[in-house]
Amino acid sequence: MKIIKADYILTCDDDFSIIKNGAMVFDEDVIEVGLADYLTQKYSDLEIIECGENSVVMPGLINSHTHLEYSKNKTLLKYGDFNSWLKSVFENREELSNISDKEIQNQLEIIKQTGTTTLSEISSFAKSLKECVKSDLRIVYFTEILGTNEKYIDFIKEDFNKKLEVSLSYKSAKFIPAISIHSTYSVHPILMEYATTKAKEHNMLMSTHYLESIYEKQWLQRATSKLKETLSIVNPDIKVFFSEEKFVKCFDDIRTSFVHACYDENIEDKYIVHCPVSNRLLGSKKLDISKVKTNLLLGTDGLSSNISLSLWDEMRMALMVHSEYDLQELSKKLILSATKNAGEFLKLPIGVLEKKYKSDFIVLDLEDKLNLKENLDKLILNTKKVKKSFIAGEELSL
Amino acid sequence: MKIIKADYILTCDDDFSIIKNGAMVFDEDVIEVGLADYLTQKYSDLEIIECGENSVVMPGLINSHTHLEYSKNKTLLKYGDFNSWLKSVFENREELSNISDKEIQNQLEIIKQTGTTTLSEISSFAKSLKECVKSDLRIVYFTEILGTNEKYIDFIKEDFNKKLEVSLSYKSAKFIPAISIHSTYSVHPILMEYATTKAKEHNMLMSTHYLESIYEKQWLQRATSKLKETLSIVNPDIKVFFSEEKFVKCFDDIRTSFVHACYDENIEDKYIVHCPVSNRLLGSKKLDISKVKTNLLLGTDGLSSNISLSLWDEMRMALMVHSEYDLQELSKKLILSATKNAGEFLKLPIGVLEKKYKSDFIVLDLEDKLNLKENLDKLILNTKKVKKSFIAGEELSL
Repeated sequence: MKIIKADYILTCDDDFSIIKNGAMVFDEDVIEVGLADYLTQKYSDLEIIECGENSVVMPGLINSHTHLEYSKNKTLLKYGDFNSWLKSVFENREELSNISDKEIQNQLEIIKQTGTTTLSEISSFAKSLKECVKSDLRIVYFTEILGTNEKYIDFIKEDFNKKLEVSLSYKSAKFIPAISIHSTYSVHPILMEYATTKAKEHNMLMSTHYLESIYEKQWLQRATSKLKETLSIVNPDIKVFFSEEKFVKCFDDIRTSFVHACYDENIEDKYIVHCPVSNRLLGSKKLDISKVKTNLLLGTDGLSSNISLSLWDEMRMALMVHSEYDLQELSKKLILSATKNAGEFLKLPIGVLEKKYKSDFIVLDLEDKLNLKENLDKLILNTKKVKKSFIAGEELSL
Repeated sequence: MKIIKADYILTCDDDFSIIKNGAMVFDEDVIEVGLADYLTQKYSDLEIIECGENSVVMPGLINSHTHLEYSKNKTLLKYGDFNSWLKSVFENREELSNISDKEIQNQLEIIKQTGTTTLSEISSFAKSLKECVKSDLRIVYFTEILGTNEKYIDFIKEDFNKKLEVSLSYKSAKFIPAISIHSTYSVHPILMEYATTKAKEHNMLMSTHYLESIYEKQWLQRATSKLKETLSIVNPDIKVFFSEEKFVKCFDDIRTSFVHACYDENIEDKYIVHCPVSNRLLGSKKLDISKVKTNLLLGTDGLSSNISLSLWDEMRMALMVHSEYDLQELSKKLILSATKNAGEFLKLPIGVLEKKYKSDFIVLDLEDKLNLKENLDKLILNTKKVKKSFIAGEELSL
């Protein structure tokens, strides 16, 4: 058991308590959070970690949507319009998928150094598995199912199941297998049924891309859209499989995050993963985040539609994308979307610094004096790398 | 005379020509721009600078609004609302102004390394003069006039004139004195008259902050606004000096840039310096850039309301702020606002790579293969530091 002292403890608890001259007693779990003076007296025999001047201790960040396997992209993919982008993904799939372990490892390092402690990684072709298993980050690993062609259903099932079984064999407190449905337009109902059954069987979380583009919306509503032409490259007999309602209903009784949801009119009652940079680069409508409260989660998406997997970069960009939003309120909302809300979605005791939560936390340096409560934006504006990072009470090497 | 070869020459000329496998023959001025094969034959005896794979040569960037003297701010100033911010500037003026030459020099280094070759620096208290004179960047140095209290008019005139005379004594091709009027609410008409007369006398450019906040708009229209209370801290007898029309009319016959102009309804016919990050952080309305064409200039503003003085950072943020704008079109618009348009405003032959322009240019590395014409966004998204930078044909040490 140790005690860590900082100028501020940003707890992300229900009251969004910020404790000035605070401290936290922790081992694998958080034991107690409070004033440094009080806690250092109460636990007078503990080793003290001093974070120094202008320091902040806060929950480790939770990135609710990444595609590490697409980390190779820098200039390959076409930005500006979802449909053109998707075409460019098809055209460059081979080059993109030719990614080395080293490249994935590099991104995991950046993710760690920028204060993310938990990652929801979507794996399309199991290329990120090895590095995710090796990583000292907490990783929720979503094996993705994808396929529309009836001819290949059995093959896809088998392939998916094999990948899922491998991921299940690594299951631990820090590696949590889960399942992803690629999207409304790319998964056959038989595969949907197969995957959701598996999820229920193993009590796994699910995630799905959902109403990311206007083309997807049109496709579901009218069975015609620019998207059809693009999807026909892969399956000339492509057809509409779901209505919005029917699709969402498939996830009844399964804890599921809906990624993007820019064109969803019912975002109030789902867990929504917001990826503001990705949405902007692919020409999607800005998500109306005023409608999404504690169900708002934040993701960077992959480097296939972003320039950074740092959640601080993402939050900085989000402050710009949602420029009509009050700066302080938005800062708080973003911080919660990357901590408390995400922990709740994952049903894991993380994202809050409070008794009984896991000791997943980071130490930041504000660089100068600051009334943090009134200047949350500064945390987002100025943080690049973190000073320290802990998972389950263990300090990571940064 | 030398010849520089690159995968792309982005000329920023009237046709926005992008020359693949291009080259540029230059000394202090641009001699000729064209295909590398043609130019290396035509000028077969010249030294060739090879920029290598995935390289781009383009005009050096022009930052149309900085306050280097406010580089000390990291967390001192309150963001989110212009009026609260202004109060915090008053409260921290002493600490802010206590800036060392070294700190200004550091920012000038960053500006240089990120590809800016010309800077419009607003000097409120002549603290940036020494470093700007020493700098190898091209600097338009705006001595600012500011004061509302009639009692001090003579003192302010004298002080302003002294600073202006010093700046004029350094006048050169790379150090161009100019004059700034602080704003509609902070400059007495007598001082306005004095400064504009000086500008005409020396044929100098001018710049002014203009309609940056809703408070300023209200103040000019109704002589009542939250701003009044804040301004009263400095001058308890503060009153409205100008209507919008009267203020703008003061600059008749003087080439003037209007900085921010978020609440100006007549932005079509002025040179507008857009500072998107600053506007966002101070809670101003987003500028309607669709109304501003070749008169759009780009500025970072100071670190008093930004986190970076890199124009690439500013352009990246601008892509997010104006997320409703087509990504490719906006990328082009931003690049022109930081090159050609700004050169035109300054009446300097810079910002374009074409015969008779000065050889102010930068070399970038795209990091991967790319059809630049269709992917201008990638230039903005991926560029952090530049590979090389030249002013009047001389390579800068980066």
